[in-house]
Amino acid sequence: MSELPKFVEFHEEGPREGFQSEKKLFSLEERVGLIDALSDTGLKQIQVASFVSPKAVPAMADAADLFGAIKRTEGVRYTGLWLNENGFERAAAAPKVDLDGVFCLYTSEPFCKSNNNCSIEDMRQKQIGWLDAYARHGVSLDVVYILTAFGCNMQGEIPLEVVVENVEFIHALCAERNLKIPTIYLADTMGWANPVEVKKRVGLVQKMAPDSRIGMHIHDTRGMGAANFFAALEMGVDLFDSSIAGLGGCPFGCFADMTAAGNICTEDMVLMCHELGIETGIDLTKLIEAARMAETIIGRSLMGRVMHTGTLDVIRDKRKAV
Amino acid sequence: MSELPKFVEFHEEGPREGFQSEKKLFSLEERVGLIDALSDTGLKQIQVASFVSPKAVPAMADAADLFGAIKRTEGVRYTGLWLNENGFERAAAAPKVDLDGVFCLYTSEPFCKSNNNCSIEDMRQKQIGWLDAYARHGVSLDVVYILTAFGCNMQGEIPLEVVVENVEFIHALCAERNLKIPTIYLADTMGWANPVEVKKRVGLVQKMAPDSRIGMHIHDTRGMGAANFFAALEMGVDLFDSSIAGLGGCPFGCFADMTAAGNICTEDMVLMCHELGIETGIDLTKLIEAARMAETIIGRSLMGRVMHTGTLDVIRDKRKAV
Repeated sequence: MSELPKFVEFHEEGPREGFQSEKKLFSLEERVGLIDALSDTGLKQIQVASFVSPKAVPAMADAADLFGAIKRTEGVRYTGLWLNENGFERAAAAPKVDLDGVFCLYTSEPFCKSNNNCSIEDMRQKQIGWLDAYARHGVSLDVVYILTAFGCNMQGEIPLEVVVENVEFIHALCAERNLKIPTIYLADTMGWANPVEVKKRVGLVQKMAPDSRIGMHIHDTRGMGAANFFAALEMGVDLFDSSIAGLGGCPFGCFADMTAAGNICTEDMVLMCHELGIETGIDLTKLIEAARMAETIIGRSLMGRVMHTGTLDVIRDKRKAV
Repeated sequence: MSELPKFVEFHEEGPREGFQSEKKLFSLEERVGLIDALSDTGLKQIQVASFVSPKAVPAMADAADLFGAIKRTEGVRYTGLWLNENGFERAAAAPKVDLDGVFCLYTSEPFCKSNNNCSIEDMRQKQIGWLDAYARHGVSLDVVYILTAFGCNMQGEIPLEVVVENVEFIHALCAERNLKIPTIYLADTMGWANPVEVKKRVGLVQKMAPDSRIGMHIHDTRGMGAANFFAALEMGVDLFDSSIAGLGGCPFGCFADMTAAGNICTEDMVLMCHELGIETGIDLTKLIEAARMAETIIGRSLMGRVMHTGTLDVIRDKRKAV
């Protein structure tokens, strides 16, 4: 067990994860409103939208318009997501997109096939091609995601050796191209992680890649999200993807509805950090206001807890005032 | 950090915690149906109802009838809760109640006042009196709850020293009356615990009371429930109160609604245990069916995750079958 980190950075995924997984479409104004509210909370990175096929994901068809319409707060990065070079070029052409050089490593053949219609190896080769497109836009290799790094609904458990092989691959690629070692994210894309496995796999990557910052992308699919988050904190992880109000869903074979399968909830995890004495640079009161706005927009009760129950600081302050 | 326990015991609180905190009243048949379904899951203890003032808690007015109507499965204990000797005598007179000798230690004067209309010290003295009533019914001192053992909405943080003093009190009482050392529960009645504090306080009580089994009663008020549960597992705790579907609420000054403030969710925590290789003696499939029944009865989407997303074993089995 490492020390808990002193500062944890949250990358907000709610606008993309949330709106893309709803059946309903939401107006540009509603989405801009939420993103602008998030911009005002102290969050340093917000994933605004994905540049993917408008046919496959109609909610993301106007990604460029959305980037054009948001208020850009200094010090906040506004990122997008793409699954192919065409998507990246659309992102690069859109206004105000902060381009991260992202490389996605697949660990499950059927998931790779379903997402990209090609094999894991082909997807690697395609992305090696993207590096040239990245370079043309002055973008370096910043972030590597190891997707379904714990398990996959289509493949079952992902063996530890597969994670090892992916880290080795990225090291070899960086050596070959003389790139600096990127941040490595372990992504529990479909909610297969448990806290013991988080410790094991984070520990392994820390050992293999001591020069990489390690991030985690956690879905709270089966109620273990907060435990997985804490387990990662205990390993010293200081970078997390999360979703305001717990927005989002996993559209890959979940049992019944999507309401229970979003990312870990930003404001609940920020509260946990603050209660543990970990700084986040985030104004929790404003974050909770944004979460309530998200709930109003989506139009049903969302999974976040503290937006419904209030923070402990509210109670502490009330007591001080007496 | 201790080893994770090999076996974890869950005491189901859903029927009491859940139905007492809903505004609506539910028919005897509905409540009996849920309890009978829970009886068939492998759970070894179910808290059926409380014997409290029917004026204060109308949902519990027919507690004795409920005990009379449930199907009693061998090997399952059906318990009740009371806040005074009169309540205990009603429980003792009701059919089929498994009487636990419970002693509740308050750590917050205003909460004790609000629950019992007396001081902490008066409440201790009253309960010392209950021990005679317990003895008349052949009941020994089995379980001590340290209530709001982390913090209280009316009092703020509860200092560690208060927990220490309570453990000392119970040891002195047991020595004086020649009673065997009971199970000690740390109850996070209002959701103030965080996982670091869980480890600290559990560790302290383990040191002070090495002969006591330690249990935890956790509310997932602010999204830290699963992390607190895992932190307790890491300390070797093997006994938890929990609620089917995450039923329940904390009627003491929560911010907005009650839907976010129930106990940790039985089936989600059982899933976590099974994923960690910890046995529970519980059939998770039947437990999830009971959770869905609870959702149907309550009539709105409840907080439990895995009841909506399905277990990982369902996916594993499907893959095996291919």
